[in-house]
Amino acid sequence: MWLYNGNKAFLARLKHGDDLLHAIKDAFDSVGIRMGVFMAIGAVKNAKIAFYNQQGRVYLEKLVEEPAEILSCIGNVSEKDGETFVHAHITLGMGDGSAKGGHLLEGTTIFACELYCVALEGEQLKRQFDDVTGLMLWNY
Amino acid sequence: MWLYNGNKAFLARLKHGDDLLHAIKDAFDSVGIRMGVFMAIGAVKNAKIAFYNQQGRVYLEKLVEEPAEILSCIGNVSEKDGETFVHAHITLGMGDGSAKGGHLLEGTTIFACELYCVALEGEQLKRQFDDVTGLMLWNY
Amino acid sequence: MWLYNGNKAFLARLKHGDDLLHAIKDAFDSVGIRMGVFMAIGAVKNAKIAFYNQQGRVYLEKLVEEPAEILSCIGNVSEKDGETFVHAHITLGMGDGSAKGGHLLEGTTIFACELYCVALEGEQLKRQFDDVTGLMLWNY
Repeated sequence: MWLYNGNKAFLARLKHGDDLLHAIKDAFDSVGIRMGVFMAIGAVKNAKIAFYNQQGRVYLEKLVEEPAEILSCIGNVSEKDGETFVHAHITLGMGDGSAKGGHLLEGTTIFACELYCVALEGEQLKRQFDDVTGLMLWNY
Repeated sequence: MWLYNGNKAFLARLKHGDDLLHAIKDAFDSVGIRMGVFMAIGAVKNAKIAFYNQQGRVYLEKLVEEPAEILSCIGNVSEKDGETFVHAHITLGMGDGSAKGGHLLEGTTIFACELYCVALEGEQLKRQFDDVTGLMLWNY
Repeated sequence: MWLYNGNKAFLARLKHGDDLLHAIKDAFDSVGIRMGVFMAIGAVKNAKIAFYNQQGRVYLEKLVEEPAEILSCIGNVSEKDGETFVHAHITLGMGDGSAKGGHLLEGTTIFACELYCVALEGEQLKRQFDDVTGLMLWNY
């Protein structure tokens, strides 16, 4: 467990037509914060999500080529290779009421999105390759 | 991005039989807070949700006429027309284990619900009509 | 509504192979916190979830015997019978992109998980049997 002060928060209205993953990164970068968590709701025009094949150690990508509600998009930002890195999972509400979701990838287009960010003041976590899972995880 | 102090939080046990959307509004109103975010889990007796038709610019309503778990209900409160306005999206867990969800509407009946609220001290955001999406969004 | 100071936060990387519900409890116990909320993303090797039958007042258990993304796992910790008690709901992203979910039970195996916790300083809530729902809820 890493301890943080989390009293500094932000809200952002993300821009129509922007890429959701990039927009979350840009929101944190615009205030110079590289350690935090976030939660968002809204809607997308289309989405690109992934499912991690735990045996094959590869992300399987899926395109959602229709509008969807963002039922939740939650995650964190930390550092990878000297850059701000966003890790986000998204749950989508489809036109028939059903839900889909996965690991959020570039290629998801914002229709409208309201983002809540918490800046975490304390140790800057960095992602490194983890042998057990094949993922880039925080060192502990 | 709007900066806030978010160190003041609340928990509430919402009342069995109450309307979920109203109960969230009442929780914030009871402590005089019109700017914040929230996250809830629990269960509902039935639900009324919506999917926004991005082309037609109209919310399509859906009734869920059976009990469901609240897998997540997240969102924010701000101001619209001089009133506290709750924007919430809900993910529901059905009896067969599948998930549904959408924009939370009046007409969702609480079975049990535990609500976590964060008061955001800073600029009071107000919703206004947005030409691009047809939605009531924060000014920026 | 109970008021809290929520400026103290934690991040944890939960261990591959551990039980998710136990790991969340252990994370809070390791810092001596029995009142808080959390939000997590990651992936599981398998899951055990439940749906509460509101008429029959019994949790119906479901096994998810395949890997899944944790689209969200949110909830709270408080006290029950003198012990730290975790109440969590989980939304899972399956290999076909669909979503499932329910009340999180013991028997859910972590593949990788990033946990964000907020310590809530204020009244320690305790769960007691509620006649109306048959659930263990906070006293109010």
